[in-house]
Amino acid sequence: MEIIKYPTEKEAKKALKRIALENKKIIPKVQRIIDTVKAEGDKALFSFAEKFDGVLLSSLKVSEEELNGVEKKISPELKSAINTARKNIFKFHSAQKRKEIKLETSDGITCWRKSIPIEKVGLYIPGGSAPLFSTLLMLALPAQIAGCNEIIICTPPQKDGNISNVILYVAKLLGLKNIFKTGGAQAIAAMALGTESIPKVYKIFGPGNQWVTTAKQIVNSIGVAVDMPAGPSEVLVIADSSANPNFVAADLLSQAEHGPDSQAILITTDENLLHSVNEAVTDLRKKLSRNNIIEQSLRQSKLLLVNNLNEAINISNNYAPEHLILSVNNADDVASNIINAGSVFLGNYSPESAGDYASGTNHTLPTNGFAKAYSGLSTNSFTKEITFQKLSAKGLQNIANTVKVMANAENLDAHKLAIEIREKTDG
Amino acid sequence: MEIIKYPTEKEAKKALKRIALENKKIIPKVQRIIDTVKAEGDKALFSFAEKFDGVLLSSLKVSEEELNGVEKKISPELKSAINTARKNIFKFHSAQKRKEIKLETSDGITCWRKSIPIEKVGLYIPGGSAPLFSTLLMLALPAQIAGCNEIIICTPPQKDGNISNVILYVAKLLGLKNIFKTGGAQAIAAMALGTESIPKVYKIFGPGNQWVTTAKQIVNSIGVAVDMPAGPSEVLVIADSSANPNFVAADLLSQAEHGPDSQAILITTDENLLHSVNEAVTDLRKKLSRNNIIEQSLRQSKLLLVNNLNEAINISNNYAPEHLILSVNNADDVASNIINAGSVFLGNYSPESAGDYASGTNHTLPTNGFAKAYSGLSTNSFTKEITFQKLSAKGLQNIANTVKVMANAENLDAHKLAIEIREKTDG
Repeated sequence: MEIIKYPTEKEAKKALKRIALENKKIIPKVQRIIDTVKAEGDKALFSFAEKFDGVLLSSLKVSEEELNGVEKKISPELKSAINTARKNIFKFHSAQKRKEIKLETSDGITCWRKSIPIEKVGLYIPGGSAPLFSTLLMLALPAQIAGCNEIIICTPPQKDGNISNVILYVAKLLGLKNIFKTGGAQAIAAMALGTESIPKVYKIFGPGNQWVTTAKQIVNSIGVAVDMPAGPSEVLVIADSSANPNFVAADLLSQAEHGPDSQAILITTDENLLHSVNEAVTDLRKKLSRNNIIEQSLRQSKLLLVNNLNEAINISNNYAPEHLILSVNNADDVASNIINAGSVFLGNYSPESAGDYASGTNHTLPTNGFAKAYSGLSTNSFTKEITFQKLSAKGLQNIANTVKVMANAENLDAHKLAIEIREKTDG
Repeated sequence: MEIIKYPTEKEAKKALKRIALENKKIIPKVQRIIDTVKAEGDKALFSFAEKFDGVLLSSLKVSEEELNGVEKKISPELKSAINTARKNIFKFHSAQKRKEIKLETSDGITCWRKSIPIEKVGLYIPGGSAPLFSTLLMLALPAQIAGCNEIIICTPPQKDGNISNVILYVAKLLGLKNIFKTGGAQAIAAMALGTESIPKVYKIFGPGNQWVTTAKQIVNSIGVAVDMPAGPSEVLVIADSSANPNFVAADLLSQAEHGPDSQAILITTDENLLHSVNEAVTDLRKKLSRNNIIEQSLRQSKLLLVNNLNEAINISNNYAPEHLILSVNNADDVASNIINAGSVFLGNYSPESAGDYASGTNHTLPTNGFAKAYSGLSTNSFTKEITFQKLSAKGLQNIANTVKVMANAENLDAHKLAIEIREKTDG
């Protein structure tokens, strides 16, 4: 890992510059997939499954038999773990539900905002070597707590035409029934446009590869909402002499194993710690199975030595990490100065993997500096708010002149007329 | 206005189908403007002002003298109106500030979410015939209440090189100082990318023409957040026999005068009312100055007669109107069944123009059916939320096995290691 000592603000910025996201080349290809799904519906999904997933499907939808048969295939240990995670995620996300805000802004003018579930949502769960059943928990639980009426799940089939058992188990546990065997850009297109089998949804959630994220971007530009823009996963650790180098090394490695483009960064005020962490990374990675991926991602990882915690905080706020671990003595003080981050982990016993799975927080977070303007996923990502207002005749009278004068200054006659005509008719 | 009697659900859907938004032709042109601003900075903005606004500017930034000189140019009547509107908007948007949510999900595991202002935001205020100073109030007040550190305003210069007095007055009143004379796609590009004069922001707000909305869409795809997707303005009125036909007609006309692509719709259970409204529209529009615009927009407006209020509610929820006026006896009951709308106005004395200017609610709302997934603007549009978690050694121990089992099932070794290594070292 590259070591950078006492960088200026500018040097730190340069050192932590992310690899530019570049999807221009695949945009036309993704657009063609979307157009094909639009034109051919289910037929396109069957043929893409053959082409991309190497499987001839007999049905897109997971059958009741498939769902019912899965429970006995999961170990009691994994069931129990999923249950613990579910409880904590449920608890934290239930607390996020918003109360109605209602008040009288002036005499006779009552205004309120009400949170209402988005009726139809689509959840994308990536396939690949490791089935991300934790992501299904993280997306489906808040959708259910929010009260979404229709929850659609798309996930790519395995070569044998099945969906991973543990994903099906989580779906069954949560009572989810609309699970479709389709992945990639075609799955996003299906949920955005609807096909014979797959209902059209209003908002699409979930991570994915470049094809999936590009498809989300394209359907977003035609008005389908999406959870957030995507980029490679990343962690930044701020550590002082109170940190345990082995803990920090393990946290950096947890990030590094996600993918070859992941970024793991340490900023520390303690030069000894920096070297110990570097050694511990080298030492600990020997035991890990994803060493190839780790090898690649550590190439863009950095260890920064700074003069004090304020410098570390500034660099972190400029970088806006997806995950931020504060392995420092006064973690609460440092946390109160964090203004840009996805999720923050305080102290030596709060590793990222706790939040990835089971502490209760969501693991769907803004990457790539998007935390400067975007929030991580919450129950409110599955709702929208509607504003209401009710004026009494007296209430309208109180602002009648205000509205008329303002409408007049904006040359909007009819807006003025809508007030005048009511003034003439006293309620 | 076209009259449709007792439509089936399908017929109603077809009748209310919106004109498809089509901006493909201008995308390359907008992209060129963005590329030019990226390459040339301020120089590009000066040259676009000459080309598009017909003015040779000496400076992009509004000077302190310009701001200071404006107060005496505004009538006391308009000042007082702006002040009333400001108070109500301030009151409603202050109540929207979110409290921190903090709880223990399990013994020793504390999780919380904190709302934090987006540091740098850009507000776009369109120019044109009527200066939309009300939009400046609607965007800047919530930004200030949220606590945004840097508020940048871009608005196109008039032919004389000035900004409208009333826009400057509102800026001065609110203490806003970073106002730049640039409009169109180039203004969006400047705020998204930054130039010598104009700071780069993290989120861009505000309405605009096709060029502006296309530019927002493009910069959004490279990671700059935007308020919401845009489309033509619209109102839907649900009315029964208790409605006053003149009030309803004036409300439809208020919408129709916004622009030639605006849509105004009435759904009523009362055939007499339908005809009276139709006559009142013909009658009242004679008095209005924007008759040309109204002429065009009324062409896509409809009057629907339905069997009962439930049908009206269903059609409205399918349409998801930006503005929804409930001119019915039991407006509260009907309101409780509304699930898709931007802003809802209850009863005979709650015209849209009240909410457009002065009741306190925001007038930046989702159009084009986007209300199915998007909310109108609120104070929270100017904040993002960060998640925090703090586990004690005991807290981690409580979920250690859960995390290890789940990480194992997802083939993420290092995630498991980050727990194991902490278990070995008891805190």
